Amino acid sequence: MKTISVIGLGLIGGSFAMALNKVGVAEKIIGVDQNEEHQKQALALGIVQEIVSLDEAIKQSDLIVIAVPINIIQTLLPEILDKIDDKTIVMDMGSTKAGICKKIINHPKREQFVATHPIAGTENSGPNAAFAELFLNKVAILCDIEKSNKEAVKKVKKIYQSLWMNVKTMTSKAHDAHIAYVSHLSHITSFALGQTVLEEEKNEEAIFDMAGSGFESTVRLAKSSPDMWTPIFIQNKENLLNAIDAYQDQISKIRNMIEEENSKEIHRYLENTNDIRRILNKK
Amino acid sequence: MKTISVIGLGLIGGSFAMALNKVGVAEKIIGVDQNEEHQKQALALGIVQEIVSLDEAIKQSDLIVIAVPINIIQTLLPEILDKIDDKTIVMDMGSTKAGICKKIINHPKREQFVATHPIAGTENSGPNAAFAELFLNKVAILCDIEKSNKEAVKKVKKIYQSLWMNVKTMTSKAHDAHIAYVSHLSHITSFALGQTVLEEEKNEEAIFDMAGSGFESTVRLAKSSPDMWTPIFIQNKENLLNAIDAYQDQISKIRNMIEEENSKEIHRYLENTNDIRRILNKK
Repeated sequence: MKTISVIGLGLIGGSFAMALNKVGVAEKIIGVDQNEEHQKQALALGIVQEIVSLDEAIKQSDLIVIAVPINIIQTLLPEILDKIDDKTIVMDMGSTKAGICKKIINHPKREQFVATHPIAGTENSGPNAAFAELFLNKVAILCDIEKSNKEAVKKVKKIYQSLWMNVKTMTSKAHDAHIAYVSHLSHITSFALGQTVLEEEKNEEAIFDMAGSGFESTVRLAKSSPDMWTPIFIQNKENLLNAIDAYQDQISKIRNMIEEENSKEIHRYLENTNDIRRILNKK
Repeated sequence: MKTISVIGLGLIGGSFAMALNKVGVAEKIIGVDQNEEHQKQALALGIVQEIVSLDEAIKQSDLIVIAVPINIIQTLLPEILDKIDDKTIVMDMGSTKAGICKKIINHPKREQFVATHPIAGTENSGPNAAFAELFLNKVAILCDIEKSNKEAVKKVKKIYQSLWMNVKTMTSKAHDAHIAYVSHLSHITSFALGQTVLEEEKNEEAIFDMAGSGFESTVRLAKSSPDMWTPIFIQNKENLLNAIDAYQDQISKIRNMIEEENSKEIHRYLENTNDIRRILNKK
């Protein structure tokens, strides 16, 4: 490929550009970002070789990678598809897929778009948080690929594989239903935990002195970007509410066992849940 | 000190013995463990120089460190205090403190006991999980120290400091109230998250393929030992139920904002909770 443009040079887009640089899949990687501070950082860090306007990026690119919050993807994607020529491929990296795919389902250039979700991230954001190894050995999901042309899917797949990613395909609907449980829900549980302890800090200032590494690990995602996560929670509302309800039931279940001091049941519950170790080790 | 004995050679006791070895605070470190497999592992790993019976440990030791699950501490501690001579110091490392302190409040040798909680751990257990650096730069809490003799408190404090720990003191009641929020609650939220996704796996086998590092971090504590955590949850029932209720309120709050698609409120909530970053960085 000659030129790849990355729209949005935050943690995800910035890391992707750095990784593409590393494996040399394109002659030139250019970037688009609204935020002037981020533009400067991205250039200083060598994340992209050039910052251009969106129109310029559309004109120059063989592949356009959209890595902005999903509410902005929804606005930007149809505009970009309107303007590209017949050979340009567009992919997005948003954390929900059904809304985006629905938005452009009847677009005349639908075939040139590939809906993707690389499952990678940290609690940090912005170009300064980007690093080339973010995607290494992670999973990338391609959705509704029968709606994209085969050549485009093949190219996008190849790019993810060049970053050592494990590519899987599924419908956008299935993606959103499952990701609610293994990603969106864990953000909710972290934010709620963080807020609970911050509230309690009003009673006991020194409470965080007592927090160990277990608390830090469990609350880590509560540092995540509100700009990125607010639209995700809303877009995936239906699936996420199901997941939250299932989770609340589990919390209530443990709560009742504790209230009843039912050692045997608590022990069994914890032991059953330890199964998560076997499953995560398999990965 | 001449001889220190560690009762219970799991993650905590094993790591403590290894650390004591490293800094050379005792001439000899001996161990007691009911589990024969753990005895063998502890000797093979050089965690202790000798495995002895509890009675033998009581006879030989200047300091006895109790590092077993807290329900067993409750049984063992009065027995040990009954048998020690006037110079032996006893300390425990349990994650709840009020119940243990209450249990021996009127014991004639109460003064020789120091109630402690080193805030350190991992999701793993047993001697194989032990490592000398576990306690490095962590916080150790000493409770109800006015009930212990000054010399004993001084010695225990010095030992923790020799492991580069930051020693704090508080009442056992305050300890249990605060630790419910920053340790016990995060174990509950992890176990519930793990169980929620394990249940969902019945509908979608491949769900764990989609789990990223965020999920793994949030669910890590769900791998923790049921033997250790069941009695903690029950012992700290009252405080923990308060913490769980506060947490459930926070989950419901976010749930409602999502149901109402209230972007502004969700954004504000996430932004407020991001404050956890500042606080954890200060540590």
